[in-house]
Amino acid sequence: MPSITRDQVRVPVDVPAEMRETYIDNYMKATRGTGRLMLFACDQKIEHLNDDFFGEGISADDADPEHMFRIGSQGICGVLAGQRGLIAQYAADYPEINYLVKINSKTHLVKTSQDDPYSPQLYDIQTALDLRDNGVNVVGLGYTIYLGSEYESQMMAEAGQLIADAHATGLVVVLWMYPRGKAVADEKSAHLIAGAAGTALCLGADFVKVNPPKGDESGSSADKLKEAALASGRTGLVCAGGSTVDSHTFLSQLYDQIHVGGAVGNATGRNLHQRSLDEAVRLTKAISAITLGDWSVEDAVAVFNGEKDFSL
Amino acid sequence: MPSITRDQVRVPVDVPAEMRETYIDNYMKATRGTGRLMLFACDQKIEHLNDDFFGEGISADDADPEHMFRIGSQGICGVLAGQRGLIAQYAADYPEINYLVKINSKTHLVKTSQDDPYSPQLYDIQTALDLRDNGVNVVGLGYTIYLGSEYESQMMAEAGQLIADAHATGLVVVLWMYPRGKAVADEKSAHLIAGAAGTALCLGADFVKVNPPKGDESGSSADKLKEAALASGRTGLVCAGGSTVDSHTFLSQLYDQIHVGGAVGNATGRNLHQRSLDEAVRLTKAISAITLGDWSVEDAVAVFNGEKDFSL
Amino acid sequence: MPSITRDQVRVPVDVPAEMRETYIDNYMKATRGTGRLMLFACDQKIEHLNDDFFGEGISADDADPEHMFRIGSQGICGVLAGQRGLIAQYAADYPEINYLVKINSKTHLVKTSQDDPYSPQLYDIQTALDLRDNGVNVVGLGYTIYLGSEYESQMMAEAGQLIADAHATGLVVVLWMYPRGKAVADEKSAHLIAGAAGTALCLGADFVKVNPPKGDESGSSADKLKEAALASGRTGLVCAGGSTVDSHTFLSQLYDQIHVGGAVGNATGRNLHQRSLDEAVRLTKAISAITLGDWSVEDAVAVFNGEKDFSL
Amino acid sequence: MPSITRDQVRVPVDVPAEMRETYIDNYMKATRGTGRLMLFACDQKIEHLNDDFFGEGISADDADPEHMFRIGSQGICGVLAGQRGLIAQYAADYPEINYLVKINSKTHLVKTSQDDPYSPQLYDIQTALDLRDNGVNVVGLGYTIYLGSEYESQMMAEAGQLIADAHATGLVVVLWMYPRGKAVADEKSAHLIAGAAGTALCLGADFVKVNPPKGDESGSSADKLKEAALASGRTGLVCAGGSTVDSHTFLSQLYDQIHVGGAVGNATGRNLHQRSLDEAVRLTKAISAITLGDWSVEDAVAVFNGEKDFSL
Amino acid sequence: MPSITRDQVRVPVDVPAEMRETYIDNYMKATRGTGRLMLFACDQKIEHLNDDFFGEGISADDADPEHMFRIGSQGICGVLAGQRGLIAQYAADYPEINYLVKINSKTHLVKTSQDDPYSPQLYDIQTALDLRDNGVNVVGLGYTIYLGSEYESQMMAEAGQLIADAHATGLVVVLWMYPRGKAVADEKSAHLIAGAAGTALCLGADFVKVNPPKGDESGSSADKLKEAALASGRTGLVCAGGSTVDSHTFLSQLYDQIHVGGAVGNATGRNLHQRSLDEAVRLTKAISAITLGDWSVEDAVAVFNGEKDFSL
Repeated sequence: MPSITRDQVRVPVDVPAEMRETYIDNYMKATRGTGRLMLFACDQKIEHLNDDFFGEGISADDADPEHMFRIGSQGICGVLAGQRGLIAQYAADYPEINYLVKINSKTHLVKTSQDDPYSPQLYDIQTALDLRDNGVNVVGLGYTIYLGSEYESQMMAEAGQLIADAHATGLVVVLWMYPRGKAVADEKSAHLIAGAAGTALCLGADFVKVNPPKGDESGSSADKLKEAALASGRTGLVCAGGSTVDSHTFLSQLYDQIHVGGAVGNATGRNLHQRSLDEAVRLTKAISAITLGDWSVEDAVAVFNGEKDFSL
Repeated sequence: MPSITRDQVRVPVDVPAEMRETYIDNYMKATRGTGRLMLFACDQKIEHLNDDFFGEGISADDADPEHMFRIGSQGICGVLAGQRGLIAQYAADYPEINYLVKINSKTHLVKTSQDDPYSPQLYDIQTALDLRDNGVNVVGLGYTIYLGSEYESQMMAEAGQLIADAHATGLVVVLWMYPRGKAVADEKSAHLIAGAAGTALCLGADFVKVNPPKGDESGSSADKLKEAALASGRTGLVCAGGSTVDSHTFLSQLYDQIHVGGAVGNATGRNLHQRSLDEAVRLTKAISAITLGDWSVEDAVAVFNGEKDFSL
Repeated sequence: MPSITRDQVRVPVDVPAEMRETYIDNYMKATRGTGRLMLFACDQKIEHLNDDFFGEGISADDADPEHMFRIGSQGICGVLAGQRGLIAQYAADYPEINYLVKINSKTHLVKTSQDDPYSPQLYDIQTALDLRDNGVNVVGLGYTIYLGSEYESQMMAEAGQLIADAHATGLVVVLWMYPRGKAVADEKSAHLIAGAAGTALCLGADFVKVNPPKGDESGSSADKLKEAALASGRTGLVCAGGSTVDSHTFLSQLYDQIHVGGAVGNATGRNLHQRSLDEAVRLTKAISAITLGDWSVEDAVAVFNGEKDFSL
Repeated sequence: MPSITRDQVRVPVDVPAEMRETYIDNYMKATRGTGRLMLFACDQKIEHLNDDFFGEGISADDADPEHMFRIGSQGICGVLAGQRGLIAQYAADYPEINYLVKINSKTHLVKTSQDDPYSPQLYDIQTALDLRDNGVNVVGLGYTIYLGSEYESQMMAEAGQLIADAHATGLVVVLWMYPRGKAVADEKSAHLIAGAAGTALCLGADFVKVNPPKGDESGSSADKLKEAALASGRTGLVCAGGSTVDSHTFLSQLYDQIHVGGAVGNATGRNLHQRSLDEAVRLTKAISAITLGDWSVEDAVAVFNGEKDFSL
Repeated sequence: MPSITRDQVRVPVDVPAEMRETYIDNYMKATRGTGRLMLFACDQKIEHLNDDFFGEGISADDADPEHMFRIGSQGICGVLAGQRGLIAQYAADYPEINYLVKINSKTHLVKTSQDDPYSPQLYDIQTALDLRDNGVNVVGLGYTIYLGSEYESQMMAEAGQLIADAHATGLVVVLWMYPRGKAVADEKSAHLIAGAAGTALCLGADFVKVNPPKGDESGSSADKLKEAALASGRTGLVCAGGSTVDSHTFLSQLYDQIHVGGAVGNATGRNLHQRSLDEAVRLTKAISAITLGDWSVEDAVAVFNGEKDFSL
């Protein structure tokens, strides 16, 4: 199982001396001491409204937002990413979770055909620091950039300032980088995704979440991910989980992203919370077995099936 | 009759320790110690200009804005919601009312066919706190978001910051969540309304006001409201009253919204102020009998007819 | 002649305790101790450029901007309303005038057919307070909102904040409320004007200036003004004077606006400054005889004709 | 030769008591003790890019930006107007020049047919005050408003605040007022220019620079300038010099602008810097002979021809 | 070899007295004591995404962003220009490099045919000063202006303020000046480039980076560069390197830009980092031999070929 010491955390130089220990604390918490990131994405209640939480094929457990906190608490995750208000309403009852405050969000109502996407910063960083001061275990911040949107400039500027401010206070930052807009012909192009990953690096992010590139005859998705993993340099690359698929497929993809593609973790939402609590908890452990424990796909599947247990 | 103790108020964790008692005070006042919300909506003089206050079928009492304060004072309400300036001009004479300062408003002159709706923040939160410092009984703030508007991002950002700032000073927040704009095909869709309610939760609101969903053969409006009541999680859901209907229908709908749909209150405007003072006062009591007292529809109708009395 | 005592001034509750006396001072000055407002509108040099000041039918006196200050000084007015810079250039020589600083202005060059109207805030409120600190007799502020414009939101927000800030420092506020824009079919509709007046109340204005509604077979302009006078509640309603007409007509309209329509004053510009100094001075007295002195039309005409004198 | 005493400087009342002497210092410097303004316009390197500085009919001296400072230093001017950065790069070597910091500028690349003009504020006023603190002889600020542009509101707001801030620190302000945009049919209309001049007064400018109106059978350009000179009231009116013409014509026009049209000075750019250093220096003296010395056209031409000398 | 003393550094007068030594330190570092600038442009990972770093004809070394820092460390450069976040992630391991923080950036996804270019400021200047406070060797800032874009005003305003703020803290500023947008017919016009260079001067930049103009029968590119070198006055002109060409051609062009065109340096990106580390290091030395050492083309080629060595 991968493991890093506090000395091995590479602290960006925009973290001031008096915040180095705080940054290392947060980095170690977020990566559970492994340098790998298992991110539980709980920001879709704005991003996708209720589409991901209610309906055919979705566990009835998911209709209640507290479901996500139960999974986060009983399962094994690195961080639970959600909007500030969502965290504020539940965190007092789930103090053990590592929270990543998602700073911007938009709904999916206005489609790209009507207008290019812009996801606004919903509150200033101080409000996230205030949560921390009130005792919430906030380890980092998240922000989505739709690269290639006509509003790219606004998101780039908000993210650029946010990372500087976050590092100045010892917080870790994850950027969601999604090429999208009328100017973007192919959102899943490996080369474009690599460009997005490099942009996250230039903005100073600690981790970048991208969609896995589209595989084709010239290489699998994981093969093609290598370009992005290189381009992101010292910014750790993780892949979004996407829509719900069967667990074996899901875990195999994740394994390949890490061991072939060079990813250092994963960011999973629907695949977790759309399941019943028990199943979702087991899946967090299976994912973490691969991401944090370097286990094989078979062993992880066994964890998911309740045949093995994974703990840190 | 439902009743909660101060210990039962679930204080969001973005309320700092030194403001917990203030928040609990405000929450107890707004809900009259019941955890339920009876909101008297008095923000339509901007939203609908004089259309709701003067004309056929509207009591002549309603032409004078003070009518609303008289109802608020003589009737039984949780909060009276109005713009800052309106409150500033009358509150000195009606100190006993619990005020909710509506922070944004727009007129209905520009239709959605001309431009998507944006309702601007009209003053900063400090101006509401100043009212409180001047002795006005301000217990909370209100803000409207038109979800799906091309200006959604501006309203989401204003509301997101507002809630953080309000909680930081111990104020309760109600969000008016209305899907509206060229991208919104069906404003009354239960699924969409549930998404709007979930969005309010993610922003951290204490209560969310939605329009009741449209019922159809698959279920009544109240049945369909359940999805939204679940999606809003710890954010209490209340339904808007809509245009004036006969009192029995109105009270029955309200009863079902609470006892079938999972609402924790109501938000009523026109149904109250368009009536004469005496009738309006009796209707506040009938509404509160259901909302705050868990009375039956029949008993509430008797209150409205002056055959019974409801008091706290 | 109407007269109010300092105790009778209804101070809005957003005026803090330590500014109550200042507000009462300003209110008494602006209304000359009567509770009525005679406003001399001197903001047209931006609004109408030189069209109102030079040309056929306009006294040559009006070509020199100082003409307005001479009228304000020698005549009887409540306040002289003008932009900050105009006041700054002349007020040292006319210290006895009560000034109302007009905070926003636009030219009429871009027509509504090209773009909806937006009148920008030209300077922050501190600059008006600085004038006061420098010894200028500033009693209040003015702001124009074009209701129904696509830029309504910007003006509403600027005005909403302005009123809060003005009251916080003891200044009186007058809103110019003009429905205008592609969405506005009939700017002179009595019902729409009433909506505009109600909006001014909700923003917390002390006085609202509206155009007189269009009369028709169902009622005179003054009759139809009643709806707006009711809708404006505790915000005093005054009518704009409009383009220059003969003095008898003008004074009769004014009388009816007050005694039939419920107005509490007037706001007159062109009808005054387009006349020679002597004639303009007499007209201020005739207007004030009606507005501030409750004199009859006949007596006011006699004042205008120099047959009687009106003084406070 | 006109001359004013310090007591004769009419200080606007927005200049605070503690800054009166500073304002008078700056006013006396800018007008060289005459109350008249000779402004050397050196802001065209942005406004017209290199078109005015290099090419046929332009002295080779003009290719080097330092040429303007040499003229300003060896000639006789009231103020040299240029952007902050230009002044910052040369002023240490030319400390004797009175500088007017041009606060906004745009290039001419985007034509009005593509978009209406907006000239942005390039730096805050503090940066100009910092130059003064660093020992640069900054006496005032300049700002251009394109009246009638769809961006009029932004420029009006920037200028309105700028003048208040400048006066608060004792600086003199010159507004460049140019009607321009799709809404402006005739930029050279005398009536429109008068409106622009009146607008500058209402914003509180000390001087306003306008283009000379177009003359026709009803009157010469200078005749028609009278309306603007009246409309600008206590704001001194000066005319832009325009493109390079022969010196006799140029000086005659200037003489008439002052002695017929009521201007109190001139603002000249290309007519100066497009000439060789020697010729340009002589032309500054010829212009100043008329503007500051009230000399005749013939005597001024003699100065330009080197037959007479003008000094202060 | 050109060499300047600290006394010969011409410090702009917007650098305050207490920051003069810091500015001179930075200027001497950036120009390696020569007054000439060799800028290694490492901002393309945002500007061109991964196009410049991965693919046919590009060394595999370039896929890893650290490649640029290795070149900067082992080669001879004046400054390495990159975004704040990129520097923050690597500078701790490369403390000897002189860093220029590129303040704005955009991707190339939205083409000019879709929308005119705007490159947003990504973080405030304080974040760059914080890097310096944390021990990073930050000597200056960079900013790109697309002159003639419909967003020119935003970039001009950001750059105008930035330069003032940078000089106030002793930092050197380089402006990238690129005419681009629907209004720009010929980006490579010598006359237009000269206008852009003059604009950089007026904003107060220390150096301006332009594209070399297009040569034609009337003169070579270097000949035509003279106009810009004159127009930029005291702002040093450097040319962008453009896409990768063979080294002899590249070095000849550079030599001519300096010795014919009047440039004082170069700004090179792709020509360096697209080569293998060894080759790139040798090319930095060859470039510096010309730029900083005034060597001949032949000698510089020998350096590139490893036949001679160049050191400072």
